[in-house]
Amino acid sequence: MFHIGRLSTVDLDEDITPEEDAVRSKPKEIPHNEKLLSLKYESLDYDNIENHLFLEEERRMGHMSFRCLEISRWVICGLIGVLTGLIACFIDIVVEKLAGVKYVVVKKSIDKNTEIGGMCISLILWAALNSAFVMVGAIIVAFFEPIAAGSGIPQIKCYLNGVKVPRVVRLKTLMVKVCGVICSVAGGLAVGKEGPMIHSGAVVAAGVSQGRSTSLKKDFKIFEYFRRDTEKRDFVSAGAAAGVSAAFGAPVGGVLFSLEEGASFWNQLLTWRIFFASMISTFTLNFVLSIYHKKTGELSSPGLINFGSFDLKYNIYEIPLFIVMGAIAYGCVNQMVSRRYVHRPCLQVMEAMLVAAVTATVSFAMIYFSNDCQPLETQKSSEDYSLQGFCADGEYSAMATAFFNTPERSVRSLFHSPAGTYKLETLGCFTLVYFFLACWTYGLTVSAGVFIPSLLIGAAWGRLFGIMLPYIALNPSVFTDPGKYALMGAAAQLGGIVRMTLSLTVILVEATGNVTYGLPIMLVLMTAKIVGDYFIEGLYDVHIKLQSVPFLHWDAPATSHSLTAREVMSSPVTCFNRVEKVGTIVDVLSNTSTNHNGFPVIIQTPGKLCGLILRSQLIVLLKHKVFVERARSRLRQRKLQLKDFRDAYPRFPPIQSIHVSQDERECMMDLTEFMNPTPYTVPQDTSLPRVFKLFRALGLRHLVVVDDDNRVIGLVTRKDLARYHLGKHGLEELHLAHT
Amino acid sequence: MFHIGRLSTVDLDEDITPEEDAVRSKPKEIPHNEKLLSLKYESLDYDNIENHLFLEEERRMGHMSFRCLEISRWVICGLIGVLTGLIACFIDIVVEKLAGVKYVVVKKSIDKNTEIGGMCISLILWAALNSAFVMVGAIIVAFFEPIAAGSGIPQIKCYLNGVKVPRVVRLKTLMVKVCGVICSVAGGLAVGKEGPMIHSGAVVAAGVSQGRSTSLKKDFKIFEYFRRDTEKRDFVSAGAAAGVSAAFGAPVGGVLFSLEEGASFWNQLLTWRIFFASMISTFTLNFVLSIYHKKTGELSSPGLINFGSFDLKYNIYEIPLFIVMGAIAYGCVNQMVSRRYVHRPCLQVMEAMLVAAVTATVSFAMIYFSNDCQPLETQKSSEDYSLQGFCADGEYSAMATAFFNTPERSVRSLFHSPAGTYKLETLGCFTLVYFFLACWTYGLTVSAGVFIPSLLIGAAWGRLFGIMLPYIALNPSVFTDPGKYALMGAAAQLGGIVRMTLSLTVILVEATGNVTYGLPIMLVLMTAKIVGDYFIEGLYDVHIKLQSVPFLHWDAPATSHSLTAREVMSSPVTCFNRVEKVGTIVDVLSNTSTNHNGFPVIIQTPGKLCGLILRSQLIVLLKHKVFVERARSRLRQRKLQLKDFRDAYPRFPPIQSIHVSQDERECMMDLTEFMNPTPYTVPQDTSLPRVFKLFRALGLRHLVVVDDDNRVIGLVTRKDLARYHLGKHGLEELHLAHT
Repeated sequence: MFHIGRLSTVDLDEDITPEEDAVRSKPKEIPHNEKLLSLKYESLDYDNIENHLFLEEERRMGHMSFRCLEISRWVICGLIGVLTGLIACFIDIVVEKLAGVKYVVVKKSIDKNTEIGGMCISLILWAALNSAFVMVGAIIVAFFEPIAAGSGIPQIKCYLNGVKVPRVVRLKTLMVKVCGVICSVAGGLAVGKEGPMIHSGAVVAAGVSQGRSTSLKKDFKIFEYFRRDTEKRDFVSAGAAAGVSAAFGAPVGGVLFSLEEGASFWNQLLTWRIFFASMISTFTLNFVLSIYHKKTGELSSPGLINFGSFDLKYNIYEIPLFIVMGAIAYGCVNQMVSRRYVHRPCLQVMEAMLVAAVTATVSFAMIYFSNDCQPLETQKSSEDYSLQGFCADGEYSAMATAFFNTPERSVRSLFHSPAGTYKLETLGCFTLVYFFLACWTYGLTVSAGVFIPSLLIGAAWGRLFGIMLPYIALNPSVFTDPGKYALMGAAAQLGGIVRMTLSLTVILVEATGNVTYGLPIMLVLMTAKIVGDYFIEGLYDVHIKLQSVPFLHWDAPATSHSLTAREVMSSPVTCFNRVEKVGTIVDVLSNTSTNHNGFPVIIQTPGKLCGLILRSQLIVLLKHKVFVERARSRLRQRKLQLKDFRDAYPRFPPIQSIHVSQDERECMMDLTEFMNPTPYTVPQDTSLPRVFKLFRALGLRHLVVVDDDNRVIGLVTRKDLARYHLGKHGLEELHLAHT
Repeated sequence: MFHIGRLSTVDLDEDITPEEDAVRSKPKEIPHNEKLLSLKYESLDYDNIENHLFLEEERRMGHMSFRCLEISRWVICGLIGVLTGLIACFIDIVVEKLAGVKYVVVKKSIDKNTEIGGMCISLILWAALNSAFVMVGAIIVAFFEPIAAGSGIPQIKCYLNGVKVPRVVRLKTLMVKVCGVICSVAGGLAVGKEGPMIHSGAVVAAGVSQGRSTSLKKDFKIFEYFRRDTEKRDFVSAGAAAGVSAAFGAPVGGVLFSLEEGASFWNQLLTWRIFFASMISTFTLNFVLSIYHKKTGELSSPGLINFGSFDLKYNIYEIPLFIVMGAIAYGCVNQMVSRRYVHRPCLQVMEAMLVAAVTATVSFAMIYFSNDCQPLETQKSSEDYSLQGFCADGEYSAMATAFFNTPERSVRSLFHSPAGTYKLETLGCFTLVYFFLACWTYGLTVSAGVFIPSLLIGAAWGRLFGIMLPYIALNPSVFTDPGKYALMGAAAQLGGIVRMTLSLTVILVEATGNVTYGLPIMLVLMTAKIVGDYFIEGLYDVHIKLQSVPFLHWDAPATSHSLTAREVMSSPVTCFNRVEKVGTIVDVLSNTSTNHNGFPVIIQTPGKLCGLILRSQLIVLLKHKVFVERARSRLRQRKLQLKDFRDAYPRFPPIQSIHVSQDERECMMDLTEFMNPTPYTVPQDTSLPRVFKLFRALGLRHLVVVDDDNRVIGLVTRKDLARYHLGKHGLEELHLAHT
C-alpha cells in the first residue's frame, strides 16, 4: 500500500569533474523541502567488494603484511591526532593574537576619548575592526568554498552515516574553514571555534589516510590499501573524534561522538584506534599550548574550552530543579532555523559584516548603559576576567566582563564567579541580547560553531535561575551557589539545540572534571531532548532534513513491520550479463534519467543473480578499455589490477568524459573478475525492520532482493529505507526528487 | 583443505531440567584442553525469529505500545542500576562491619599479649577467624553453586559474546556470589570485591528484565515481551555495565566494558540505556554510602574503590618510563594459570581455609619482623591509613599499614602517601609476598575478584620503581613523587593480567579523576597488552580457552580469505518439510549423536529453503501437541501464541520429558506459522571473513548456506567460525569435542 509505482531507484552520481568544479563556485540552489528526499547524494559503501582481484590480493598477503597494515593504521591515527591538535593550537593562538590586538586598539581609544563624541569614534573603530575581520571570513567562505560555512557538524554526521556529501573532506575546505573560523571569532561574532574543529579533524583524517592530495595533485604512493570507502570512513571517524577531543579536552567524549554518529558496527580495534587519535590530539594541544603559555609540561589546557574544575557538591533535592531547567531549553532552534537564506555571495558577505557591526554596537551600548559596577575584591579568581569598562577605579563592569571577553572566558566566569558577581538585571539583559545576536548570527555564511554561544546563553539564564531561586525558595540558605545552575543551564541549552545525548554528557563531564555531575547532566540532557523533540527536531537534524539527505537512523520506524522488501525495493532493476556488450554498458551508464550506481550481474537464461558491479568499477573498466573483441583475436582481456581502481578513487570520471569508438561498442566486457560475486541478498518477504537491520549493521549500499529461485527482482538502496519515517500520523513516506 | 568430513554441526542442548539440577551440585569434570572447542555450549540468538506470530503481534501493536515498551526498558534499566548499587552497598557495608569486628578482636589480643607466647595466641586467633570466614565462603560456593567461583568475568564475557553459559545468570548464583565475596574479603584473602560486582549486575539484569524468577517459581506477568535472547542480552549488558560502574565509580567505563565485550551492533538508544543504568548504579551507591557514613548528600564515594583524586602533573619525559613499566607487567598470568585444579569440594574448602591461615600467618610474620617504623607526622592524610603495629608510640608501622588494611585502602595509601612513607625493603618484601599469595589465592573455590590484588601488586612495585628512580637518574630531583609510578604500575599490572584496553583506560581515568593521565595510562595498557600477548593470552581469555568455549572474536583471522563458506559450513544438514510427520521430528530431536538446535525448513521437491526452525520451538510445539491429524478430522492445528513460547523461555524441557503416543507420531505438524520464513543466507563461495562479519554483526546463531538455486547445502554456526584462529604457524583449526 505504500508502494509507489516508480520506475527505479536512482542512486545518482554526483561526482564532479575538476572542470565542473572550477566553474561552480557557488552552491546549487536546492529547493529546501523536508518532505523530499534528494537523489543527488551518493552513498558510501562500507561493504568490501570481494571480487577476484581483492581475494587474490588478500590471499597473497601473509601474516606479516596484515601486521604492517595494522601498524600503518595506528601511525595514521597518531598523525591525525597530532595534526588535529596542531590545527586547534593554530586557531587558538591566532585568534588570541588577533583579538588581543583588537582589544588593545579599542581600549586605547576608549581610554583616550572619554567624552561622548570620542565614544562614537571608539564605537566606530570597534565596529569597523569587527566588520573587517568578518568580511575576510565571509568572502573566503562565500566565494571559494561555500560548504565550509557553519560548523560542518551536520555534514560530518551525514558522512559518518554513509552519505557522500560532495567536497566535504577536501583540503581546500579545510583551509577555508580554518581561516574562516579565525576571522569570525576574532571579529567578535557570537560564535565558537569548537564545532569547526570536528570538521577539520575529519578532513585531516580523510587526507592523511589516503596518502595523497588530489587538490595538490600530489601522490605519496603510501597507504594505497586504504583507498576505499570502508577504510576511509573509519579514519574519518577517528578524525572527528580527534576534533571533539581537541575542542573540549574530552577524548572519551570524542570516541562516543564518532560512535553515536557513525559506526554502527562496533569494532574493538577500530574504537581503540579512534581513542588513540583522540588522546594524541588533546595531548598535542595541551603540550603545545603549555609551551606557548611558557608553562612547559604543565598540561593544564586539554581543550580549546575548559570549564575549570567543579568542586561544588549538589544535593539530591536539586535534581528536580535541574530537570525543570532541561525542560525549558528547546526554544532556540526555531529561531535559528527560521532564518531566511540569502543566496547571493555578495549579499552574504554584506550581511555578515552588518551582523558584526551590530554586535559591536549592541555590546558597546550595553556596557555603556549598564552600571553594574562591582568592587574588584569580590573577584578572587586568578584569571583576568574583570574589565573596568566605564566604572570607577577599583571596580569592574560586570556587563563589560560578559561582553568584552572571549565567549569561552565568559562561560567560565559564569560558572565559577562567586555569588553576587552578577546583578539580576545585567544577566537578564545579557541573556536576551546575546540570544537574539546568536540566532541572527547563526546561518551567516561564515565558518563558526554553535556550541559556545549555546553554552553562553545557557550559562547566563542558568545563573539567572540560580540567582532567583533564593527569592522564591522556602529556605533560601541552601541555594547559595548559582554556578552549578549556570552549568546545568548551559547543558540544557546545548542539549536543547544539538540534541546529542550520550556523547554530550561525557563531553560535559570530562570538561567539568567531576564525575558526580554525570547523573544530573544526563537527566538534564534527556529532559531537554524529550521535551525538545516534542516540538521540533534538533538543529543538526533539521538541517539534514532541509537538505533532503537520505539519512538512516538507528532502527527502522517501530510500526514498519507491515512492510516487506517487496514493497520497499526499487524495481525493475537494470542488470548486466556476466559478459556484456560494451555498447549496452555505455548506454546504460549514459542514461541520465536512470542514473544507477549499482548493477546486479545475472546469468542470462534463468536470470539468476551471480554478482554485483558498481558504476565506478565499470567506469574504470571502460577507461582502461578492458574489452574482449567479438572476433576473439585477443582472447584475454587486458589485465587490470586493484591499483587501477584505487588510483581512480574517489573521484571517478563521469561517463561523458570517456570516449568509446563505434568498433569498441561492439566488443564484449567480461565482468566476472571485477564484480562482487557474493552480494548480500534478502528474500522478498523480509520485513522492513529486518532489511533495515542488515543494511545498517553492515553499512551496505545495495541490497539485492531475490525470489525463491535466486532471481533478481529488486534492489534496496539507502533512499528506499530512508523514505519511511514515523510522523505525527503514523508511518509516513517521503518523496524522492532529482534535486 | 581445512574441511574435515564430520557429519554435522551440533549445537548441543545443555538445558538442565530442575530434577537434573538438583542431583548435580558439583561441576562436570571437563577435560580442559585449549586445542578443543566444546560442543556443550548453546549459543544465544540475537536475531529475532520473525515468524507469522511475531509479525502479527508487531503489526497489531500501535505506536503507543512501542512507546510503552520503550518506557518499560528505561524503567528496567533504572531498576537494574538501583539494585546493583544496593548490592554493592550491602557488600561494602557488611565487609566493613565484619572486618571491623575481626580487627578489633585481633588488635585487642595483640595489645594484651605483647610477649612472644601471647603473640602466638593472637596469631592463631587471627588465622582462625580468617579461616572461619573463608570456610563459609568456600562451602557455599563448592557445594551449592560452583559457577559462582572466581570473579565471573570470563563467564559474563562469554554470555555477552553470545554463548549460553549454564546457570550463570540465576538468582541462586547471585546469592552465593554475594555471600561468598563477603566471606572471602572479610577473611583477609588477597582478593577484591570489584570483579564479582560485574557478575552480580548481570544476574540482577537477567532477573529483573524477565519479570519473574524461575528459581522462586514466581511470575509477575510483566515484561513478557522481553522474554527472548535478543532483549535479555541487551539488559545483561546494562547489568554488567552497572556492575562496573558501582565497583569503580566509572559509569562511562562500564558502558565501554559492555560494548567492548558484548555488543557488536552499536545501537544509540541501547547504549544510552546502558549508560543510564550505570549512572543510576553509581549514584545509588554513592547516595546510600553517604547516608551510611552520615554525610548525607556529599556523594564522595562513587565506587567501591576510589583512587582519590590525582593532582600530580607528569612530564613528557616520564612517558617512556611509564611505557617501560607497561612492558614488564605480564608476569602474573602464567603463575595464576598454572595453578592445579582441585576438584573435590571438600578438598576445595580445606584448601581455601589453608590459604586463609597462611595469608594471616605471613602477614603477621611480615609485620613482626619488619621494623619499618615511621613517625606519625609524615602521614598527613586525614584517612586512617596508619597502624601502630609493633612500633613505639607516636610511630606507625609501614608494613602493618600495607598488610593489615583492606586492600582498597592499601592501594590508595600507595598512590597518595608522600615520598618517604615506605622503605625500599618493606615495599620489596611486600610486593614479593603479596604476589605469591595472590597467585596462590587465585583459582580457589571462592567468589573473589582479581582486580584489587593486581592493582595492589602493581602499585607496590610501581612505587618501588618510583623510589628507586632517583638513585639511578642523572637528575634525581625531578623524580620526587613515587605516587604516580604507583598508579602506572597498578595500571600496567592490571592491564598485563586482564588485557582489557579501552574500557580499562576509561575506568582508571574515571577512578583517578584526572583526564590528563589518560594518555600515559593508555600507552601503558597498550604496551602491557602487546608485550603480554607475545607470551601468553590474558587471564580471562586463557580461562575461556581452557573451558573450550566457542568464543567469537571481533574479526575473522586476517589470513582466512582463502576459506569459503563451503569449507567452513557443516553438512549434510538435517532439514524438515513445511508439513512434517511428528514421528520424524521426535526422532530427529531425540537423536543424541546429532544434537542439532536449528533446522532449515525446505520445500520437498526441489529442496529449496523456505525457513528455519529452532529445537526450542519444536519442543514447545510438541508439548502443546500442535498436530494436524492425517485424517484431517481437525483441519486446524491448535492455535499457539507467542505467549506459549515466552512462558517456556529460557528453560525449555528436554525432548525426553515429552511423551508422544504412537497415534500422535502419525500426525503431521505444520511448521509454516512458526518457522522464521526469512533466515539470513549466504552463497557457498562467500569468503570466511564475509561470513564472519555477517554472523558477528547480526549476532546470528544459524546461517544457512545455499547454492545458486537457493537449495540448502550447509549450515554455519558459532563453532564453525570459532574453530579458526591465528596461531604461531598461521591459520590453525581447533577440533570439536562433545565434552
